[in-house]
Amino acid sequence: MSKLLEEMLAINARYVENFGERARLSVFPKKKVAVLMCMDSRMEAHEFAGLGDGDAHIIRNAGGRATDDAIRSLVVSYKLLGTEEFVVIHHTDCGLEKVTDLQMRELLASSLETAERSENGFVDVGKGPGSRDGQYIEWLAFTDGEQAVRDDVTRLRNHALIPSRIKISGLIFDTRTGKLTQIE
Amino acid sequence: MSKLLEEMLAINARYVENFGERARLSVFPKKKVAVLMCMDSRMEAHEFAGLGDGDAHIIRNAGGRATDDAIRSLVVSYKLLGTEEFVVIHHTDCGLEKVTDLQMRELLASSLETAERSENGFVDVGKGPGSRDGQYIEWLAFTDGEQAVRDDVTRLRNHALIPSRIKISGLIFDTRTGKLTQIE
Repeated sequence: MSKLLEEMLAINARYVENFGERARLSVFPKKKVAVLMCMDSRMEAHEFAGLGDGDAHIIRNAGGRATDDAIRSLVVSYKLLGTEEFVVIHHTDCGLEKVTDLQMRELLASSLETAERSENGFVDVGKGPGSRDGQYIEWLAFTDGEQAVRDDVTRLRNHALIPSRIKISGLIFDTRTGKLTQIE
Repeated sequence: MSKLLEEMLAINARYVENFGERARLSVFPKKKVAVLMCMDSRMEAHEFAGLGDGDAHIIRNAGGRATDDAIRSLVVSYKLLGTEEFVVIHHTDCGLEKVTDLQMRELLASSLETAERSENGFVDVGKGPGSRDGQYIEWLAFTDGEQAVRDDVTRLRNHALIPSRIKISGLIFDTRTGKLTQIE
């Protein structure tokens, strides 16, 4: 077991002792909302938007993009578990703004080591072997953060499995100030 | 703007006032870990595993499954942003244990209203129209929770774009007690 996993389990043991009323929460989110947002480590929805224990479905991927898998999750959310509103939240300083799909493919073809951050993006450290399998994946990199939010909200609003009664909005989280700004 | 969104933005205004040291956090997760877990509203990784502001990438979808999109996110996580460990966390009382893929397709074909919970799963309230587009989606429902964790960890361990140096473990979160149990 890794040191990190040991730490997580030690923290969990204390959490279990103080679990309390949380045991009564159900699988149905109290605030009837599903949030689709980036995996970024600085985005804590319980803090920046008050969505805590039992409140909301939180769906997260690189970029907070409206992928087929995010849509699978959102449909499960409203169809089985009663959410009535979706909120898409991207953020400033996103990793997917710092590369292009082509660069991701080249970096992976070069090696499977972690790339180094350079002034102009990322460069590979070149300790191969890499894998050319990266070319089969759409990495969903973007250059215009506001447009990416609009694209994702638009895709959800037009999807055949998402009914028009579901309210859908799109926001950007500023990682330097914590501020949420509505785009859509 | 919805009432919920108004509430979220009011909470956010107070958060911004107390943002403080968070402004210094970088896009690189401090604990060098990416967690793949379910969207369930009861799973708060900052509480049950001590993964808070700036610590970890958190990737979430219905079930916490190792989908192509989760793999896209995990590869971005280690290749660009330096994570060295992945932790898959499923949970008890999951919505995806209460249906089959076939049932999801039938429920959606019947209507796009929220289904009603019944003793044997979910039944549709039948206020069509529905959509047959649900048949083109793999819903990734499962019956054996531990096996689903093993399947997802195995898929990640064997993926061409995920190097063997990345430590990968799999756990189940008990929504009645808050306890994490390692499966893989």
